[in-house]
Amino acid sequence: AERIRFILGEEDDSPAPPQLFTELDELLAIDGQEMEWKETARWIKFEEKVEQGGERWSKPHVATLSLHSLFELRTCIEKGSIMLDMEASREPSSAEMVVDNQIETGLLKSELKDKVTYTLLRKHRHQTKKSNLRSLADIGKTVSNLRTLRNPSSAARTQPEGLARQRLNFLFLPLSLMQLKNKFMKKLPRDAEASNVLVGEVDFLEGPFIAFVRLQQAVMLGALTEVPVPTRFLFILLGPKGKAKSYHEIGRAIATLMSDEVFHDIAYKAKDRQDLIAGIDEFLDEVIVLPPGEWDPAIRIEPPKSLPSSDKRKNMYSGGENLQMNGDTPHDGGHGGGGHGDCEELQRTGRFCGGLIKDIKRKAPFFASDFYDALNIQALSAILFIYLATVTNAITFGGLLGDATENMQGVLESFLGTAVTGAIFCLFAGQPLTILSSTGPVLVFERLLFNFSKDNDFDYLEFRLWIGLWSAFQCLILVATDASFLVKYFTRFTEEGFSSLISFIFIYDAFKKMIKLADHYPINSEFKVDYITHYSCACEPLDPGGVTRQYWRCCQQSVQYNTTIDWSSLTTKECLKYGGQLVGNNCEYVPDITLMSFILFFGTYTCSMALKKFKTSRYFPTTARKLISDFAIILSILIFCGIDALVGVDTPKLIVPSEFKPTSPERGWFIPPFGGNPWWVYLAAAIPALLVTILIFMDQQITAVIVNRKEHKLKKGAGYHLDLFWVAVLMIVCSFMGLPWYVAATVISIAHIDSLKMETETSAPGEQPKFLGVREQRVTGVIVFILTGVSVFMAPILKFIPMPVLYGVFLYMGVASLNGVQFMDRLKLLLMPLKHQPDFIYLRHVPLRRVHLFTFLQVVCLALLWILKSTVAAIIFPVMILALVAVRKAMDYLFSQHDLSFLDDVIPEKDKKKKEDEKKKKKKK
Amino acid sequence: AERIRFILGEEDDSPAPPQLFTELDELLAIDGQEMEWKETARWIKFEEKVEQGGERWSKPHVATLSLHSLFELRTCIEKGSIMLDMEASREPSSAEMVVDNQIETGLLKSELKDKVTYTLLRKHRHQTKKSNLRSLADIGKTVSNLRTLRNPSSAARTQPEGLARQRLNFLFLPLSLMQLKNKFMKKLPRDAEASNVLVGEVDFLEGPFIAFVRLQQAVMLGALTEVPVPTRFLFILLGPKGKAKSYHEIGRAIATLMSDEVFHDIAYKAKDRQDLIAGIDEFLDEVIVLPPGEWDPAIRIEPPKSLPSSDKRKNMYSGGENLQMNGDTPHDGGHGGGGHGDCEELQRTGRFCGGLIKDIKRKAPFFASDFYDALNIQALSAILFIYLATVTNAITFGGLLGDATENMQGVLESFLGTAVTGAIFCLFAGQPLTILSSTGPVLVFERLLFNFSKDNDFDYLEFRLWIGLWSAFQCLILVATDASFLVKYFTRFTEEGFSSLISFIFIYDAFKKMIKLADHYPINSEFKVDYITHYSCACEPLDPGGVTRQYWRCCQQSVQYNTTIDWSSLTTKECLKYGGQLVGNNCEYVPDITLMSFILFFGTYTCSMALKKFKTSRYFPTTARKLISDFAIILSILIFCGIDALVGVDTPKLIVPSEFKPTSPERGWFIPPFGGNPWWVYLAAAIPALLVTILIFMDQQITAVIVNRKEHKLKKGAGYHLDLFWVAVLMIVCSFMGLPWYVAATVISIAHIDSLKMETETSAPGEQPKFLGVREQRVTGVIVFILTGVSVFMAPILKFIPMPVLYGVFLYMGVASLNGVQFMDRLKLLLMPLKHQPDFIYLRHVPLRRVHLFTFLQVVCLALLWILKSTVAAIIFPVMILALVAVRKAMDYLFSQHDLSFLDDVIPEKDKKKKEDEKKKKKKK
Repeated sequence: AERIRFILGEEDDSPAPPQLFTELDELLAIDGQEMEWKETARWIKFEEKVEQGGERWSKPHVATLSLHSLFELRTCIEKGSIMLDMEASREPSSAEMVVDNQIETGLLKSELKDKVTYTLLRKHRHQTKKSNLRSLADIGKTVSNLRTLRNPSSAARTQPEGLARQRLNFLFLPLSLMQLKNKFMKKLPRDAEASNVLVGEVDFLEGPFIAFVRLQQAVMLGALTEVPVPTRFLFILLGPKGKAKSYHEIGRAIATLMSDEVFHDIAYKAKDRQDLIAGIDEFLDEVIVLPPGEWDPAIRIEPPKSLPSSDKRKNMYSGGENLQMNGDTPHDGGHGGGGHGDCEELQRTGRFCGGLIKDIKRKAPFFASDFYDALNIQALSAILFIYLATVTNAITFGGLLGDATENMQGVLESFLGTAVTGAIFCLFAGQPLTILSSTGPVLVFERLLFNFSKDNDFDYLEFRLWIGLWSAFQCLILVATDASFLVKYFTRFTEEGFSSLISFIFIYDAFKKMIKLADHYPINSEFKVDYITHYSCACEPLDPGGVTRQYWRCCQQSVQYNTTIDWSSLTTKECLKYGGQLVGNNCEYVPDITLMSFILFFGTYTCSMALKKFKTSRYFPTTARKLISDFAIILSILIFCGIDALVGVDTPKLIVPSEFKPTSPERGWFIPPFGGNPWWVYLAAAIPALLVTILIFMDQQITAVIVNRKEHKLKKGAGYHLDLFWVAVLMIVCSFMGLPWYVAATVISIAHIDSLKMETETSAPGEQPKFLGVREQRVTGVIVFILTGVSVFMAPILKFIPMPVLYGVFLYMGVASLNGVQFMDRLKLLLMPLKHQPDFIYLRHVPLRRVHLFTFLQVVCLALLWILKSTVAAIIFPVMILALVAVRKAMDYLFSQHDLSFLDDVIPEKDKKKKEDEKKKKKKK
Repeated sequence: AERIRFILGEEDDSPAPPQLFTELDELLAIDGQEMEWKETARWIKFEEKVEQGGERWSKPHVATLSLHSLFELRTCIEKGSIMLDMEASREPSSAEMVVDNQIETGLLKSELKDKVTYTLLRKHRHQTKKSNLRSLADIGKTVSNLRTLRNPSSAARTQPEGLARQRLNFLFLPLSLMQLKNKFMKKLPRDAEASNVLVGEVDFLEGPFIAFVRLQQAVMLGALTEVPVPTRFLFILLGPKGKAKSYHEIGRAIATLMSDEVFHDIAYKAKDRQDLIAGIDEFLDEVIVLPPGEWDPAIRIEPPKSLPSSDKRKNMYSGGENLQMNGDTPHDGGHGGGGHGDCEELQRTGRFCGGLIKDIKRKAPFFASDFYDALNIQALSAILFIYLATVTNAITFGGLLGDATENMQGVLESFLGTAVTGAIFCLFAGQPLTILSSTGPVLVFERLLFNFSKDNDFDYLEFRLWIGLWSAFQCLILVATDASFLVKYFTRFTEEGFSSLISFIFIYDAFKKMIKLADHYPINSEFKVDYITHYSCACEPLDPGGVTRQYWRCCQQSVQYNTTIDWSSLTTKECLKYGGQLVGNNCEYVPDITLMSFILFFGTYTCSMALKKFKTSRYFPTTARKLISDFAIILSILIFCGIDALVGVDTPKLIVPSEFKPTSPERGWFIPPFGGNPWWVYLAAAIPALLVTILIFMDQQITAVIVNRKEHKLKKGAGYHLDLFWVAVLMIVCSFMGLPWYVAATVISIAHIDSLKMETETSAPGEQPKFLGVREQRVTGVIVFILTGVSVFMAPILKFIPMPVLYGVFLYMGVASLNGVQFMDRLKLLLMPLKHQPDFIYLRHVPLRRVHLFTFLQVVCLALLWILKSTVAAIIFPVMILALVAVRKAMDYLFSQHDLSFLDDVIPEKDKKKKEDEKKKKKKK
């Protein structure tokens, strides 16, 4: 350990040694011919083996070794010749130097020299190469006379004819075509070096010939290595016949060592044999041992999802703790949750607008990159997906709003508002990944407000304008006073409660809409094929005689020129319009539409889910899979629009307003602030405005917290104050224009982030791609909202999308946003018997009954919120989310801080106190 | 190695040592109180750890050790006191003996004796026990005076008060209630013994106190062990403070060793310290090493699916080969395939009826067990599932047959035939797991035969009777001459080709039927909700004036008493019957039914698939999951019948004949053999009979081969000759009664076997349940066919099952029977990029292009067969399956025997030849 510390510790300022590519070549007689060096395995990090029969590379796997081979290797290093920092530029010379060295030290009889050298210089055959090498080598021979680069010192010696010819092959064939064409190269960094392990059995040796060589400079040794990478290390083991398997295992052992990060460093820095042996001993000390009775050595272990950093091991030599097996990894407190207690964005500045200014200063440097970072195909998929979600949302909420406010605000206002506010927000806000949308609570508020105005003869739009202005003012005060720092108190409990609730509402609404649709298009379940002649629906005048005349009286304007009506040719609407009645047992039924809608609904959902999961399937190349997965929702929408068009049933379609004017003819695009209501109403509006402010603040900031979660690895920072500032400003605009108010929408924002996730692309074979972060940029958002605005003119295309397909997408979004939510995991635990429960970190540390209690409390809270949401009290819904924070606070008395630190984040103050306590303790010590 | 061989080798006649339960107890101060021994892990085969915070058992996992701890353990055994075959009946005495021994050997200072003994006798706390032990111990104290069993020798010594009291607790509390109630007990065999590992740090020791004790007889040491199992081994390690983690790891190491099969034997048989050390060294030699940089020691490795037998290791000491890491397991030739070349059932006897007699002799002893082996809930599920499949099949084929033969054979014949032949076959045949059914080729033959008879004015049924008789006669000749031995030539290639083809036909037919259904109930895709008034369908007389009279003329018989017809009240059928016409734009359309059918079809399929997979989900206890999975198909049928009933749409339902009489009134239940045709027809029938014979033989035997596959682990043997004998006999019966002919049905038979698969129920935690075999019995089959017969009277219940649901079940059966077929795996490989391909054994040994070539040839064969099947040449279909055998034979020239041995089975002769060649070679040597 002392020695290792010394080896690793010194010259820490020198650059880190380059990555190694390790190749194991074995001496084999191929097709009964001459012996050749055949590549049998390779390592970057994990082992890849050549399947002899299969003529292919195995999957990368963890190299399981036998202890025996490691000890044999140790003996090899102890007894063999170690040549560190050897100067050599070509393989022949290096090979000879090694052989000479062995003869000098008496390890090899000098008469065997030529044979050994000859063997070492046999042809190399690589897995990707097959037999092309031979012909290339032949070409190499002919040009050998032209460029004689041979080392004169070695050339001076007399050599057997075979050896001389052999050497030429390697001298004059610097790189074979196959080497250069090798695609494997892209898995290696540019400065990578190679380490070649050569093991084999020969018949002329009686004792083993062992050499470990480190070259002073990495040299390209011809076709020695599979890829055109210069060689730095050579390990040679030749031994007498009969122990090929043992040699193979020793070769694997040294190759595995060379690919081990710590030994790799030691190998680069070693000064002598003892350093290398210390390195092996260190490796042996750290090795993980599987009992032979509990594991089958023939199993190839798949590389783990994540690896402990080698720094831990390296640092251990500066006095760390031992790792424990099968063990309890130390708890890092945050464990990927929303632990945002310490983050710089939420610190209170204490100055006027301090947070806002800081937000702007933080985000401004990224403004340019916010545009060019979007240059990726993934952005296109995200745009399409989020666009459709936004449009659907706008239509749904627009429809509901029109219904609630008697068309004072309708679908067109919803489109316009979404487009304007969304685009501006994405362009200037602190967190452009957030997507603005109408939300449920706002809708409830508008409904109540409209009814109140109507009952009290207020001018609704003007009253609303003043509430909006007051609320915006209050929000601006919150911005100026850095009130967003309160977000700290939103722990995982609050966040997950809120986002789960919103997801449940999405799912519930999707089904509700489908049931409503089924009600609207009832199925005739009494229908019998044989009785088709009995079903009819005809339009008849209400009363063949008198009523027609009565009709003529009341409706003369509309049908001025129709003197006689052909009742049977009228459509249902016309029939009712002209005062007819529908007679027949088939009038109330609509065939096929409901069933087709359900097929489309479940089909879209299932298809989206399946295509999204396609990324992890085994079929097709990675890029194709990724593309399909990224475009999963668009693809399923297209597929089911196609199916709908094929079947041709008249399912309800997406209807986009095609004319640009307010839904209600009674209003314009500007709401005059005065004149409609008595003066005191302008002041009194401040009271309902307070409610709106709480609502906006909660809705906006919880979503912001979720978007800015640590686990999303955002690099450009959040901007809680700036976000709220823009929401307030846009509220003023919307109030004046009579458009709905907009806040951050949780589910769509999460969907937005999910569709922009980045992962590492190239890595050593077997290494898992790592989640790198999210494409943080403003382009997708801005384009989504511009498209939303333009959609008004895209009606002819959009009208082919059936509504059930969009409901299916809603269902998908609701379910998908529940994924990976710890609360859902804990809910699932309730259904699992103990022994099948997954190995969650909190289950290792918190008793199950405490976990269940925590889940139960959360379920109760959500159930109460759900009930609240469904009653008239829905308006205080956002206030009740504040209550969640209080409930969480109360839990401090029910659960230990230890339990809470695993199940939730610790509330900041507590955290601080704890730290302070610890500090005090330390001081006392 | 020499020593191990000696230890393991001697007294091989003594019974195998019992299984060990190993428990690791650590000395911990709980709640700052007195020290207690706390159970922290346990082993039967794999490690289960107590999650300290979670207060639960972890999942069983492979015990990963550090090499360091193993070496420390070795040192412990070297230096500590080893007491083998100690006589002791209670813990206190044994504890004292251990301490005395240490003092004697000078390892422990005598003044520490009391303290050590006191520590050793601290209370034990087990994971399942919680705090109940304390109160029980208190009760124990009070009764202590009554039954003084104390060891007088140890009682004579002076002891500190605490020790004496402590001892009482253990003396008089032989077994706590919790121990007895422990459910874990059922995981252990009856004669299991315990090994207790006690490790802990104490403050009074300066050096370690180490003891390894083997008791002469296993003794119940009170509450020492979690489960009421007598203790045989004790390992005690007490050491100075500060190295608790290291002690813990040593404890885990010895516990893992004790649960290792080889060391466990050594521990039982060891004579001295050196034997134990040799055991550890053996373990170290066999250990599997994971490099620290490629694996995270915190990962708990799940137990592998299968483990290498420990016999291999044990036998190694009688001179075996070394195991290779990550390696190529030696190829066993059969690898689970249908390698039936050597099986006794197919050997040619050469005697008249030799095979048949042998079959009867082989199966007779099992006849009784064939009935009582069926006593299991699983049988019920199998009966229901197969019953529905059989009824559906009977109806489908009955319908098609009725269509093909103008009702000379119809649904009722199909039912009767299925019931009679199936029941008799299952009752007496050689392989009662085979399910008889009408098959496609037979259907084609009947259609051709009927048309031929009609064209040539033959009496169809009589002609058919003679063909049947001839064919049965030919089959009986095949039986008598043991011709079934030819089955040997059906390799995996033929089998899989045939069964895949049949599965594809199932899938194809399911979809075809759905499309036919959609054609039959066309959707009105032009339907607009608003124009409902325009859709109508009315019944009108063809020609209001003249035609009605014409009608009266032609149809006077049927409507004698109807003088005037109320055309508008007629149903479609009546309307057409009375010569009316349907007028209107809605007549040809049927609403809802098609869409509902598709919902039911895909719903049933998806639901069956999902429920079948539910077995491997994490939710609900294992038994519940297994039940759901076993009843998957029945459940989905019920669910979708429910949905169908709820929606109420008039989907086509299963129609079962309700009267017991031949479908055609022109025939009876007995076909007279003479009189209908000229005499030479009776002889000429032998020629078409030959075709039928080939057809029957191929269909029957390939299915039999699939059913009798090695991988099904059937124990009661096959009976190819007996099966064919019964098929022939039943053919005679069917021919005389004018019922369809029956042969083994591949897909239903596979489904039958799948629904009867058995797995081990109890095993050491973490061990995978093993596939034990199939419930081989006759009851399920017999009941299925009795039910089929009774179904004629169950029409009122069965008529609620919609046909699309049954088509969904067909689809499921087709897809499910493709599962695990190597051909399908290879087809999927075509779509996978190299690096994602699963680690199939043949991919390790056969180059991918050869695998693809093999797959391609198979696809071509199947495509040709498919085309053949779809044309008129369908009648020679079975002959073409024989061609598959020829193609496979031809492949011997295209592929090496090595490749074929992995991709297929080797054709017997070749195999023999090879063996002979090898023998010759050996002889030469």
